[in-house]
Amino acid sequence: MEPDRNTITDAHDVHDALERATALLHRHDELVELAMDAADASGVPTSPEESAQRQKVREELRLLLDPLHPADVAYILEALPLTQRLVVWDLVKADRDGEILLEVSDAVRETLIEYMDDHELVAATGQLDTDEIADLAPDLPSEVIENVFRLLPPEEREQLREAMSYPEGTVGALMDFDMVQIREDVTLEVVLRYLRRLDELPDHTDQLFVVDRAEQLKGLVPINRLLVTDPDVAVGDVMTRDFVRFNADEDAADAAAAFERYDLVSAPVVDDAGALVGRMTVNAVVDFMREKTDNEILSAGGLREDEDIFASVWKSVQNRWAWLAINLITAFVASRVIGLFEGSIGKLVALAALMPIIAGIGGNSGNQTITMIVRALALGQITRANASKLFIKELSVSALNGLIWGGVVGVFAFLIYHNWQLGLVMMLAMVLNLLLAASMGVLIPMAMDKLGRDPAMGASVMITAITDSGGFFIFLGLATLFLV
Amino acid sequence: MEPDRNTITDAHDVHDALERATALLHRHDELVELAMDAADASGVPTSPEESAQRQKVREELRLLLDPLHPADVAYILEALPLTQRLVVWDLVKADRDGEILLEVSDAVRETLIEYMDDHELVAATGQLDTDEIADLAPDLPSEVIENVFRLLPPEEREQLREAMSYPEGTVGALMDFDMVQIREDVTLEVVLRYLRRLDELPDHTDQLFVVDRAEQLKGLVPINRLLVTDPDVAVGDVMTRDFVRFNADEDAADAAAAFERYDLVSAPVVDDAGALVGRMTVNAVVDFMREKTDNEILSAGGLREDEDIFASVWKSVQNRWAWLAINLITAFVASRVIGLFEGSIGKLVALAALMPIIAGIGGNSGNQTITMIVRALALGQITRANASKLFIKELSVSALNGLIWGGVVGVFAFLIYHNWQLGLVMMLAMVLNLLLAASMGVLIPMAMDKLGRDPAMGASVMITAITDSGGFFIFLGLATLFLV
Repeated sequence: MEPDRNTITDAHDVHDALERATALLHRHDELVELAMDAADASGVPTSPEESAQRQKVREELRLLLDPLHPADVAYILEALPLTQRLVVWDLVKADRDGEILLEVSDAVRETLIEYMDDHELVAATGQLDTDEIADLAPDLPSEVIENVFRLLPPEEREQLREAMSYPEGTVGALMDFDMVQIREDVTLEVVLRYLRRLDELPDHTDQLFVVDRAEQLKGLVPINRLLVTDPDVAVGDVMTRDFVRFNADEDAADAAAAFERYDLVSAPVVDDAGALVGRMTVNAVVDFMREKTDNEILSAGGLREDEDIFASVWKSVQNRWAWLAINLITAFVASRVIGLFEGSIGKLVALAALMPIIAGIGGNSGNQTITMIVRALALGQITRANASKLFIKELSVSALNGLIWGGVVGVFAFLIYHNWQLGLVMMLAMVLNLLLAASMGVLIPMAMDKLGRDPAMGASVMITAITDSGGFFIFLGLATLFLV
Repeated sequence: MEPDRNTITDAHDVHDALERATALLHRHDELVELAMDAADASGVPTSPEESAQRQKVREELRLLLDPLHPADVAYILEALPLTQRLVVWDLVKADRDGEILLEVSDAVRETLIEYMDDHELVAATGQLDTDEIADLAPDLPSEVIENVFRLLPPEEREQLREAMSYPEGTVGALMDFDMVQIREDVTLEVVLRYLRRLDELPDHTDQLFVVDRAEQLKGLVPINRLLVTDPDVAVGDVMTRDFVRFNADEDAADAAAAFERYDLVSAPVVDDAGALVGRMTVNAVVDFMREKTDNEILSAGGLREDEDIFASVWKSVQNRWAWLAINLITAFVASRVIGLFEGSIGKLVALAALMPIIAGIGGNSGNQTITMIVRALALGQITRANASKLFIKELSVSALNGLIWGGVVGVFAFLIYHNWQLGLVMMLAMVLNLLLAASMGVLIPMAMDKLGRDPAMGASVMITAITDSGGFFIFLGLATLFLV
């Protein structure tokens, strides 16, 4: 990416650009509709003036879009309904297609790619670095990929094959190949002369990689050290031999955590034999972090994946049905648990009104515990030595909460139904359901972690299912024993 | 931070270090307990051998901790129960206290600061840059801050005052003062000589800031361009005049979004008059993003703030009570809604067993909608023009989901209770509750955004409250009208 690309200097300007674009698109839509109505009514095609007007609006849009950074164009594309999105996509200069496709969300990328023919896709992909092509590859038709492969020079073809070989979520899938490599035995003067022969250095070059003839990584020379050191010194005398490196097969999340902890800008990626194969940069890490937390938030909200906000109704239904179905099953189970006690409810209808309180607070408390534990697991803070201490702590918190809030709901039940036994049963049920919530809130994520599964996945649904059915069973069971 | 600081090169090693530290601490605890038991039994203080053994364990711990990066020591401190945490804290070299305090979470920092006396705190703070002191300041006793102020040279005192003047969440609160400033009219040769006189460049120096005598920011010179350009060229001829800059009062979230979009490593911060006042770096952005998403995830889980996993039971209860109380109130409301229909439930007990299904699926669907809308709002993707389209889309998705899942639950009700009218009422109730969920899922966050509130705050609790009470009311109301 050229460093001089016009960028919007005030973050609010992007939203302004979006507002201006939607206003222009609205006018464009009106003109198109007018023309279609006229054609329907008179059978006459658009008059030259009308067509000129539309052309003018388009030109204004183009002037708005041209100076924008690809990320800002991507942002505008994501915020537009499909027909308007495609009008904008047509106006974007073809030589920026590749960069913009990289920046848009997966869901929106799909709508744009569907609209392009193979020739356009090959041209768009041709503008990109091999690691970027690898990022797009899963979304491209296989004929396009084959064509792209054929058009690449042999070295880049090898790089693309390498980049595509690493599964999503590994360091290899995030790395790029823009590294500046130097030898240990030359002086900094030679290095400086070498750099000056390059037109520009790759983005995020904060260090040079020192390798030997077998591509073994020997050390790093930070650019900043290059600048402050006497040029007569040899590379081997200033290079750092003790540094963070990643293996291409390593979990990308671990690498991202290391970037965060050690404030890295770039880091070398090596293979099992210690040979330099690529580099990871902080901007890839930032994108990875964003995607990861977005997914966590979406999945906590019950969405399967990033949804294009203007996806068709049918696509949205597909994106959402899985969670609704799971929820329905757990609701059916809870319903059957209540069904077991229909006799008791028939005798004491107050139970029906009170039971959701026990279930609801149980779910809330269980989610608090599970959120803590999932987070501690993600940070690797849970060891064999402290796990049991944590378990006891959570049980104690729940017991105390159960007594406090159980007391409150007990008083509530007494005040409304003037039945102190009912109040006592509510309090007892609350304590028991919160203890159940705490135990499961600790055990479920720990068990999933032991089994090698992501403890965050579905944790909230599971705990809520347990505290619902469990809460109903405990409360109605106690009521059946002591009250009816 | 020295670039040569020993860092753990494999991310898994941090967890290993934690496991080794806990094993040593466990041994240490045992020795202390043994000594105390012996003293209780015999009244004799610890024998010299026992004391030597404890000393040996401590020494091993120190050897483990010394080479670790401050962020890794922070990580270990966070994963330990309080007493063990303080043993480790005592062993950490005093000259690293400041850096480590910066790295630990707020909750854990509190426990460490409580344990230090004013003298130690002033010494620890003295090791830090002014922008870092400003980060710690809210947690320090005011006498310590006053002492720190007194000990700083006048220029840094001014910087600290400046850094502390920006509220949390602004660019000013995240910026640092480690900028290299140059003049427009000198050659790159002069700049290179100037840099060589410095011992090292500040971390994350990827560009130099060009200012005039009035401190007005005129441009930027990327370090990489400095390296590839002929040294005889003047700064004014190579500097970038078109670049991203931030105002110190700006929202940090907007700045972070710009870092993400434009792949920045550092960016200048200016005041209202355009004078350079500081710089923002990608590592501050990464930390900010992490904290922000952590808070979102914690608050979605019903926790008020980051909780020290070994907080006392009482502290945990305090951290969690607010959400439980809010939940209790909404549960009471739902309970009273059910109470309105106790007569109907008494006549048809099946209603009690079926009603949680309508409420549950409504909450799930409402959370899906609200998650989408909150996200689109956060990204600024919702404009006046597309808001109504979004609203219609969400209503359509819900209507379709209502018919599908309403049909399923209707059949479920019919199969269990052999009452087709009950099945129809369930289906109708499901459609209506999902439409309610969709409307509120769109309107609540949009209204909160209009009112200048964070739309994510409490959105999930509110939508669930509405779909619970609303679902009970719709289902029991329809049942009362048509069934009993």
